[in-house]
Amino acid sequence: MAASAPSSSGGEAKPTLLPPPGSSYDAWCGVAHGCTRKLGMKICGFLQKNNSLEESARLTRAHGAARNAQSWERAETDFSNMFARDLLPAKNGEEPTLQFLLEVVEILTSYVRKTFDRSTKVDFHHPHQLLEGMEGFNLELSDQPESLEQILVDCRDTLKYGVRTGHPRFFNQLSTGLDIVGLAGEWLTSTANTNMFTYEIAPVFVLMEQLTLKKMREIVGWPGGEGDGIFSPAGGAISNMYSVMIARYKFFPVVKTKGMAAAPRLVLFTSEHSHYSIKKASAAGFGTENLILLNTDERGRVIPADLEAKVLEAKQKGYVPMYVNATAGTTVYGAFDPINEIADICEKYNMWLHVDGAWGGGLLMSRKHRHKLSGVERANSVTWNPHKMMGVPLQYSAILVRERGLLQGCNSMCAGYLFQQDKQYDVTYDTGDKAIQCGRHVDIFKFWLMWKAKGTVGFEQHIDRCLELSAYLYQKIKNRAGFEMVFSGEPQHTNVCFWYLPPSLRNLPDGKNRRERLHKVAPKIKALMMESGTTMVGYQPQGDKVNFFRMVVSNPAATCSDIDFLVDEIERLGNDL
Amino acid sequence: MAASAPSSSGGEAKPTLLPPPGSSYDAWCGVAHGCTRKLGMKICGFLQKNNSLEESARLTRAHGAARNAQSWERAETDFSNMFARDLLPAKNGEEPTLQFLLEVVEILTSYVRKTFDRSTKVDFHHPHQLLEGMEGFNLELSDQPESLEQILVDCRDTLKYGVRTGHPRFFNQLSTGLDIVGLAGEWLTSTANTNMFTYEIAPVFVLMEQLTLKKMREIVGWPGGEGDGIFSPAGGAISNMYSVMIARYKFFPVVKTKGMAAAPRLVLFTSEHSHYSIKKASAAGFGTENLILLNTDERGRVIPADLEAKVLEAKQKGYVPMYVNATAGTTVYGAFDPINEIADICEKYNMWLHVDGAWGGGLLMSRKHRHKLSGVERANSVTWNPHKMMGVPLQYSAILVRERGLLQGCNSMCAGYLFQQDKQYDVTYDTGDKAIQCGRHVDIFKFWLMWKAKGTVGFEQHIDRCLELSAYLYQKIKNRAGFEMVFSGEPQHTNVCFWYLPPSLRNLPDGKNRRERLHKVAPKIKALMMESGTTMVGYQPQGDKVNFFRMVVSNPAATCSDIDFLVDEIERLGNDL
Repeated sequence: MAASAPSSSGGEAKPTLLPPPGSSYDAWCGVAHGCTRKLGMKICGFLQKNNSLEESARLTRAHGAARNAQSWERAETDFSNMFARDLLPAKNGEEPTLQFLLEVVEILTSYVRKTFDRSTKVDFHHPHQLLEGMEGFNLELSDQPESLEQILVDCRDTLKYGVRTGHPRFFNQLSTGLDIVGLAGEWLTSTANTNMFTYEIAPVFVLMEQLTLKKMREIVGWPGGEGDGIFSPAGGAISNMYSVMIARYKFFPVVKTKGMAAAPRLVLFTSEHSHYSIKKASAAGFGTENLILLNTDERGRVIPADLEAKVLEAKQKGYVPMYVNATAGTTVYGAFDPINEIADICEKYNMWLHVDGAWGGGLLMSRKHRHKLSGVERANSVTWNPHKMMGVPLQYSAILVRERGLLQGCNSMCAGYLFQQDKQYDVTYDTGDKAIQCGRHVDIFKFWLMWKAKGTVGFEQHIDRCLELSAYLYQKIKNRAGFEMVFSGEPQHTNVCFWYLPPSLRNLPDGKNRRERLHKVAPKIKALMMESGTTMVGYQPQGDKVNFFRMVVSNPAATCSDIDFLVDEIERLGNDL
Repeated sequence: MAASAPSSSGGEAKPTLLPPPGSSYDAWCGVAHGCTRKLGMKICGFLQKNNSLEESARLTRAHGAARNAQSWERAETDFSNMFARDLLPAKNGEEPTLQFLLEVVEILTSYVRKTFDRSTKVDFHHPHQLLEGMEGFNLELSDQPESLEQILVDCRDTLKYGVRTGHPRFFNQLSTGLDIVGLAGEWLTSTANTNMFTYEIAPVFVLMEQLTLKKMREIVGWPGGEGDGIFSPAGGAISNMYSVMIARYKFFPVVKTKGMAAAPRLVLFTSEHSHYSIKKASAAGFGTENLILLNTDERGRVIPADLEAKVLEAKQKGYVPMYVNATAGTTVYGAFDPINEIADICEKYNMWLHVDGAWGGGLLMSRKHRHKLSGVERANSVTWNPHKMMGVPLQYSAILVRERGLLQGCNSMCAGYLFQQDKQYDVTYDTGDKAIQCGRHVDIFKFWLMWKAKGTVGFEQHIDRCLELSAYLYQKIKNRAGFEMVFSGEPQHTNVCFWYLPPSLRNLPDGKNRRERLHKVAPKIKALMMESGTTMVGYQPQGDKVNFFRMVVSNPAATCSDIDFLVDEIERLGNDL
């Protein structure tokens, strides 16, 4: 039945805009009234039952002439007596499956619409409130199945009590926004539900990944896009972990078989402003004490002379300096370490240079801003998360490696049941053995599809726009009463770090009392923000600096008016503190 | 316009089943003809423009009485001149966004339908064929944007040239099938597009994860579901890596800060049949030479006496036996190691016991089969992948830990910008610092939703059914001419391992010639299978055994007739080899 239901895409349906013969206004009203798909399908069913196959074929031709003659239609369905077992692969499960999925899509598209609606607010609920069951929203799992009606209600409630990370005024994380093409890509990915480990079950996705990685390496500046790489699970932290493991394999391949005991005491270097994942990676074998933190200038950029001094110090102690991480876009300040000067030192002392561009890598897409990563082509490996600055849905992180073969050498275990060498196709496309994991989620498609849809220029425009917005914010508050910048000068990335001082603090002398009170301002304003559900922005202390706001812009939906709103909201909520 | 379009869920529309007054058969036909949504919307638009607001309200009441008065409708849209920039957050982007997403859903639901259609075949294409551009399917990325029409075509082509892992005759991996509720859960997850690292941006998902992990621990058998756990990225390999890292932290916490050099030579044990991820994990610091492989019996189960002998041998050499992995459901044979006997040895020598139940963990849901994991409650940690035997969409793997605090202790780095301790809510719900990564994809929702929809009993039925099917296969081929079992006796899991011998090999004497020829049979049949696109099943060698088929059943769509088909197909394709 569903297969022959009238399609909405039938371009030949126009003649029927004429009223049915002999109809009155009431009849027209009836027609409109009747134009739900359920009714249309019933009528069609009636017609098909009562007329010849030719007639049926004619209708199908008339309605389904456009792209999909088998278009399915949403119909009123009572889900209260339906269960998961009634869906495909159940017998006669096709129609319930379609109707259930369309109902879900109705919920999702409604959510998408609300996401971009500035009047939508997000209420905050404490864990105990949600656990007690908000308005009947029961999180507990049970032995017996729930009806599909309940499942749909659960879907609605899940979104209702969640946080709209795509909202134009959501500035809380480095990853914000909701890209529609990316979203479509994710829906397709989960429908395809396959695994990247072998070409034979993910042929198209494996090729897309290879082409996209090559393109990214070209943009990094490696000649001909040569090199290697992989999309890693869960983001920049794992990409950074890869870099540490590969570097160790490059210098001490014996560690793979003999363990760390076979290597001398290895030392790693990273900025005190760098992401904590470098520390996590060092904890897995090296020991966090062997990760040396580098001093930065006032704006959070590594001081190269400090790196060289610490390398020499380590060597004097008999340790082996092996790895330096230069951050392109630190998490809090958005600072870019001077890659070229660091690369000089790495070459001089034969150390691996990794560039953590998880946050700042996106700027490589911008002709205007890519100079901030100048020297990145000298890196041995690069982390780059398109799910941050480029607006790709979570999760999407790449580790790019200049030298081919290291990823494979470091990680391969040649599992015979998966990577058979006697398959009938070119098994160099089975890239799974390069990964630290076995099963690998398809992350590539959404990014590939977005790139197709936006073009390289589309990403560039997005990035330039975000940086313009943050420059707008910086200009707006740098001399504004009650605002104080955490570091001076225009930010390098979209990170704008500032304190808000309520009037009650503005005339206090600098000192312990002022610091302690200021430390509490950002958390209080943030709590009030979440209670009123209007906007969200992050805060944190850094080094000896008390809590300050870190504003970041990566959301394509944000405009100057949203920046204005944020500033007004901070003043409104913080004025009486 | 969209907001007031007639909804298909209006229960009050029934009276219009009567023909419009004064209508003839032709008029009825016109009604049917006109019942595309596009037309309905046009008519409604006409009515609303030409009549009072009351009339419009009446229509809305009549049609939109059910769950969503703002139901959106699919309309014919020309995407050839539309681009990603026309979608939300673009001004007036709401309607194009909806129409684009609905068009994608049309493609996806059509794919879902075909997935379950046994007559659908999958053509195999070599990498070079796809790279050359099949029928205009161009994988290359360009600088300029493509139209949304092209994007939709790309979506269709991506699915067209992919592999239907949900097809009832896809038996190639441990993860098969396409669960509709799980799929809906994934669509919602990507629409919510948030990150698990803090409660403040994923409140509902964080709580769902906690409740689900507790439930899983209860099922493992830890009193009151006490303990800890996390869903890890990318599957069992990372969960197993967690187990090794936690064990090391438990016995030698100093490694976190001082590195492996501060620990004695640590030795790990696992079956020669165990998953290669244990070896990968050991390569990261321990050295693969410090992973001792244990002998198994003919059916692939660890021989406990061999473990004890090897522990004593390692101790004699001055090494420290630290960790034993017992596999519950090996990848190839589906063997269950005797956990209780291994646990006795672990207790005796103070070693960490990990149970890798990535594949076999699902059997815990079955009252009939859970005895195969008897003793699992004595493990210190357990890997369990619901994305395998329980049919949850990829990816979904849990690491469960009996002792609370170890995960946190092992991995926490206390990043100030993310895990602020002065937030206004109970920050123990910020679980991100327990993870090896920073950003963490929301994996929980699809599983939670499936559990709600199926109930515990639904999973049990699925698992029992899969085991029945594999028993059916075993019975069918164990004495069948041309089939030879790799090990004797009924398999413990759904893995059925067998050789197919073409008639030309059946009378050959055992020896090098026969072995060499037999080794080539499975790859050849597999290649022919992929060329004809009818079914897919895995093969591999194991130890000194030449290539054999490994049949596994985890697909809820599979039936006895599909098993019959597989056997017939192997005979058809292999008969003349």
